[in-house]
Amino acid sequence: MVKNAVDVVFGGITYWAFGFGLSFGNSPGTNPFCGVGYFFVDASQSDMGIIFSTYVFQLSFATTATTIVSGAMAERTKLLSYIVFSFLNTIVYCIPAHWEWASNGFLRTLGVVDIAGSGAVHLVGGVSAFVATFLLKPRHGRYREGQKATENPLPMGNPTNALIGMFMLWWGWLAFNCGSTFGISGGKWKLAAKAAITTLNGSMGGGIIGILFSYVIKKGVFDVGYLVNSILGALVGITACCAVVKPWEAVIIGLIGGILAIMSAILINKIKMDDPVGAIAVHGVCGMWGMLAVGLFGAHDPLENTTQGRDGLFHGGGMYLLGVQTLACFVIIAWSAVVSGVLLLGIKFTIGLRLSEENEIIGADYVEHGIGTPTILNYSDRGLLSPPARSRTPSVCSAVTTTSIKSMTETCNDDINLLSRLRTKRFRSDKVVPLGNIPGEVQNNFSSPVDNL
Amino acid sequence: MVKNAVDVVFGGITYWAFGFGLSFGNSPGTNPFCGVGYFFVDASQSDMGIIFSTYVFQLSFATTATTIVSGAMAERTKLLSYIVFSFLNTIVYCIPAHWEWASNGFLRTLGVVDIAGSGAVHLVGGVSAFVATFLLKPRHGRYREGQKATENPLPMGNPTNALIGMFMLWWGWLAFNCGSTFGISGGKWKLAAKAAITTLNGSMGGGIIGILFSYVIKKGVFDVGYLVNSILGALVGITACCAVVKPWEAVIIGLIGGILAIMSAILINKIKMDDPVGAIAVHGVCGMWGMLAVGLFGAHDPLENTTQGRDGLFHGGGMYLLGVQTLACFVIIAWSAVVSGVLLLGIKFTIGLRLSEENEIIGADYVEHGIGTPTILNYSDRGLLSPPARSRTPSVCSAVTTTSIKSMTETCNDDINLLSRLRTKRFRSDKVVPLGNIPGEVQNNFSSPVDNL
Amino acid sequence: MVKNAVDVVFGGITYWAFGFGLSFGNSPGTNPFCGVGYFFVDASQSDMGIIFSTYVFQLSFATTATTIVSGAMAERTKLLSYIVFSFLNTIVYCIPAHWEWASNGFLRTLGVVDIAGSGAVHLVGGVSAFVATFLLKPRHGRYREGQKATENPLPMGNPTNALIGMFMLWWGWLAFNCGSTFGISGGKWKLAAKAAITTLNGSMGGGIIGILFSYVIKKGVFDVGYLVNSILGALVGITACCAVVKPWEAVIIGLIGGILAIMSAILINKIKMDDPVGAIAVHGVCGMWGMLAVGLFGAHDPLENTTQGRDGLFHGGGMYLLGVQTLACFVIIAWSAVVSGVLLLGIKFTIGLRLSEENEIIGADYVEHGIGTPTILNYSDRGLLSPPARSRTPSVCSAVTTTSIKSMTETCNDDINLLSRLRTKRFRSDKVVPLGNIPGEVQNNFSSPVDNL
Repeated sequence: MVKNAVDVVFGGITYWAFGFGLSFGNSPGTNPFCGVGYFFVDASQSDMGIIFSTYVFQLSFATTATTIVSGAMAERTKLLSYIVFSFLNTIVYCIPAHWEWASNGFLRTLGVVDIAGSGAVHLVGGVSAFVATFLLKPRHGRYREGQKATENPLPMGNPTNALIGMFMLWWGWLAFNCGSTFGISGGKWKLAAKAAITTLNGSMGGGIIGILFSYVIKKGVFDVGYLVNSILGALVGITACCAVVKPWEAVIIGLIGGILAIMSAILINKIKMDDPVGAIAVHGVCGMWGMLAVGLFGAHDPLENTTQGRDGLFHGGGMYLLGVQTLACFVIIAWSAVVSGVLLLGIKFTIGLRLSEENEIIGADYVEHGIGTPTILNYSDRGLLSPPARSRTPSVCSAVTTTSIKSMTETCNDDINLLSRLRTKRFRSDKVVPLGNIPGEVQNNFSSPVDNL
Repeated sequence: MVKNAVDVVFGGITYWAFGFGLSFGNSPGTNPFCGVGYFFVDASQSDMGIIFSTYVFQLSFATTATTIVSGAMAERTKLLSYIVFSFLNTIVYCIPAHWEWASNGFLRTLGVVDIAGSGAVHLVGGVSAFVATFLLKPRHGRYREGQKATENPLPMGNPTNALIGMFMLWWGWLAFNCGSTFGISGGKWKLAAKAAITTLNGSMGGGIIGILFSYVIKKGVFDVGYLVNSILGALVGITACCAVVKPWEAVIIGLIGGILAIMSAILINKIKMDDPVGAIAVHGVCGMWGMLAVGLFGAHDPLENTTQGRDGLFHGGGMYLLGVQTLACFVIIAWSAVVSGVLLLGIKFTIGLRLSEENEIIGADYVEHGIGTPTILNYSDRGLLSPPARSRTPSVCSAVTTTSIKSMTETCNDDINLLSRLRTKRFRSDKVVPLGNIPGEVQNNFSSPVDNL
Repeated sequence: MVKNAVDVVFGGITYWAFGFGLSFGNSPGTNPFCGVGYFFVDASQSDMGIIFSTYVFQLSFATTATTIVSGAMAERTKLLSYIVFSFLNTIVYCIPAHWEWASNGFLRTLGVVDIAGSGAVHLVGGVSAFVATFLLKPRHGRYREGQKATENPLPMGNPTNALIGMFMLWWGWLAFNCGSTFGISGGKWKLAAKAAITTLNGSMGGGIIGILFSYVIKKGVFDVGYLVNSILGALVGITACCAVVKPWEAVIIGLIGGILAIMSAILINKIKMDDPVGAIAVHGVCGMWGMLAVGLFGAHDPLENTTQGRDGLFHGGGMYLLGVQTLACFVIIAWSAVVSGVLLLGIKFTIGLRLSEENEIIGADYVEHGIGTPTILNYSDRGLLSPPARSRTPSVCSAVTTTSIKSMTETCNDDINLLSRLRTKRFRSDKVVPLGNIPGEVQNNFSSPVDNL
């Protein structure tokens, strides 16, 4: 959550300063690779309506691209490093946006279609997420030696929040996809209505496959993670083509997006890439699928000529559109991987990327934001985690106590885990800390907004 | 939450496939009972704007009708059965929608007015909820023999979530009621503005009566359940007539809706119908009230001629409009009861409706979605619930331990209850389970979205 | 949350009955001080579009002004008193709205500019919050004798909710600020687009300063409270001038707003005014800043002539505009302080303002709404808080038990605190309550919406 605010605040300020200009500037010097102009966005009386509204809409895309990466970096990145990253990441997003969406961008000239950003937003974000995951390494204790990657998963933070998040994204997506085709002129509202039905149908396709998949593979258990990822994957898949495919085609595209999201999340986990929220699978893999889907299912629309008169493979347009979309994927992947790699390596070798192991286990919420109880301290420093080590008199009673309290600890643990997403379980077995007494200290670390200094 | 996603996904796909067609199809064969056409909704270049936008708007009504039922089925229905139900329930909704809203629907021909769905959405959903509640029987432990229905209530899941949900519904409703009257043509935006003020005024009436009622009956306690249900009941009541009544009449309609929601929820509980969220009272009873309110307070509007020139009883229009609205209630109730009854009985005798008693107590979250800790296991299998049974040495110390831990258990319990809505209290007294040690098993049942398989 | 519903319900009904009329009535008798007419808002066929839509928009401002006060009154005010207050508080808001926004309001005649309510909404609310905080006195245990105000802060209720709330406000603000300039006529949509970019840029400025400030002062800890308050303070600051400043000026205005919000919250706390959510700092101080910012940065806009042709100090307009804005601040502060003071003193000396000390500690959630566990009872009446007082046999085992359980209690405590915002810590040291056994009683105090009576 804090990271999302950081995305808007720091990513926003750089997007205002130079991102929008590099994407959509049209001053002298603008070329197929990047735009020039509109730096520190301002506008005269006459053109401020169109410039400012385009800017605000595009800003939401830019922060989305950065937010995608934040998911993959969850729970082990320093906030300071994240701030620097979101400050600089604007550059990763704004150049591909120019290629695809500016009137003289080289991909647009070739005929690429990416209506609401499967490529320029999601694929960019997914690739950066991949690079970040690779450079950050897995969370402490995620994968242990001698164990398969699927054993011993860390608990899902909070399924309810995941579902709420999904619903918000769902409706937000509808707005994005419709908004990308909307305008005052002629037939645009018709395309917006079409984008709405294809977006909804796509998500239905994804949701159906997610539920069926879970039911078959997990033997009757409906996994919330599968459901969320299959719906989001379907939405990413339908994003590029939302106004140029038919409703029934949208269902197929969503079905395939849902399968890809689930299968690739499983694969990514198998190769021990620790991406806590599945950002690589949902945004990266399905973003690529969305781009290719245009090449397969896209059809010429006479209303706004979105595809520049071309048809996809399944509508008799041959391989051209599919080829261009594939090319776009390659250059976007290459660009995003290289640039975000350079940025993240630069951060890694200067201020560092990861929390210290100790701080990661205690949890960023406490260390960086002063929120909540430093759960570990409660358990370890107060001696709770190792009662047998202290009580030297083995008796029925202390045995009962020990056992019960251990269970209680576990119970509360799970509970607090749910609340604060701390990972105490792995810690417990390794350390025996002497009995301390730090309530005062703990208490003072709480603070209400106005209680500071 | 998962059920709501299921409503959109499975209810949506059938609404796309045949629901919209049965409601608004106008191909040859369309008759006063149902429409024909628009199956697997698609549209040509020229009419896609109006068809697709109508479809998306109507889809949200259709999923609302199914969602209403999900509340009444909460906490004891198998998800598989619910999926089948939401897949088929489209048929229950789409036929009355044709009667009331299609140009040749037989109720519309008679002059029925139901602007945003008091009848076609809420009454339909409320009646289905009644049937579902009746067929499902109460939750385990809800009503005990020899006790009055009002004793021993199960805890309200999470009042904060209930309030958040209410706020979201509140603003969503505003959009629904305004949207139902909105359009590009002439005077429609004026009716939308009128719908906004009457919707708000109605909810104020309901909220005032809910708070007063609670204050008087519960002797100074402001009950959140009363507040939520009275506001929602008022909103359902104002839904049918939002653009054809005056602002002060809306306050009265909301007041009565609020009273009806509270009183009927109490009555429904007294006859031991276990409807955890009050869906029958709020949507069924107040949906009927909304339909009748048109017959009482409705007035001819020259702008869009919504009432086909007729006035309600209190505006000197006589009994005709009231009669037609009453007739509509009867046929909608009969249709919804019979069809949803047939569907649910069909499911009951094939795949079954309810979770097994054991699974219901452990909680659907764990059994069906692999979410959270199986709370019961923590308490019982680990022996926490029965320390005395294990420690055979009654001593001061073990007594202290036992008592304290029991209290602790209760405390944590309540807490976890709040989080996971599990119902451990009834269980505790019945079972004594041997001391087990299942942390590994429990741990493995957690999973993050990408940790599966 | 309940208080927000009360604001809409009771504040709404009085705003409908007389508030809107006092603000925007134009019947005979209307004067520079207040309007006359439009009581119990209704409208004829021809003008209902404009009246009803203005009413709904203004209603949201009115309830916002009251909601601001509710934050400052949190956790220690009787709900009944709050209802009476929100019923009457409409009068505090609607008069300054007339001064600034009605065509013959005396401040508007002088040339005051307050586009979306820095003065008429936020400053009014902030001043009332100050008065309420002063009259209510701090929460029990907030400030202790012999301690500095910054020691011993009460825990922040729930940082996640605070962040969610901030995001909702953020986007809502965008709608407010854009909506205030929007219209169908000529250039208004251009001003709306400008309001969007300045609002976003302002919040970025605030967020940046909040994060930097926290990083410097709190030595590397990113405080969520700082972040939330600095962003909200920036938004309040940009509210009055959103359509008449340049994007880069908005960043500066936001920066200053963020600093003011944080610094004044610290100051207010130092003088032992207990404002749990920082309402005085964010809305009062930054509301004043927003008014003054118009006088400094405002510029004539030819499109809609918002500033009546005048420029602010930094655009060569001299001191006039700044002087008028300052005057507006003074009269608004005086009005709000006097009238809300009279209302609150009236309530104090009739039905009383505060919960009893006992009820405050147990928590309003339980006492007034019958929600959740009365946490204190769990801890104290069951003897959990004082095991040593009961077990007279000091033994290794009881020592272990006592220590462990104390730690457990603290742990669970923090946890429950997070959930229910109860303040058990201060209580614990003062009272030793005999061992009781009240599970039945506790159980019966839970209730689901339909389980009542």
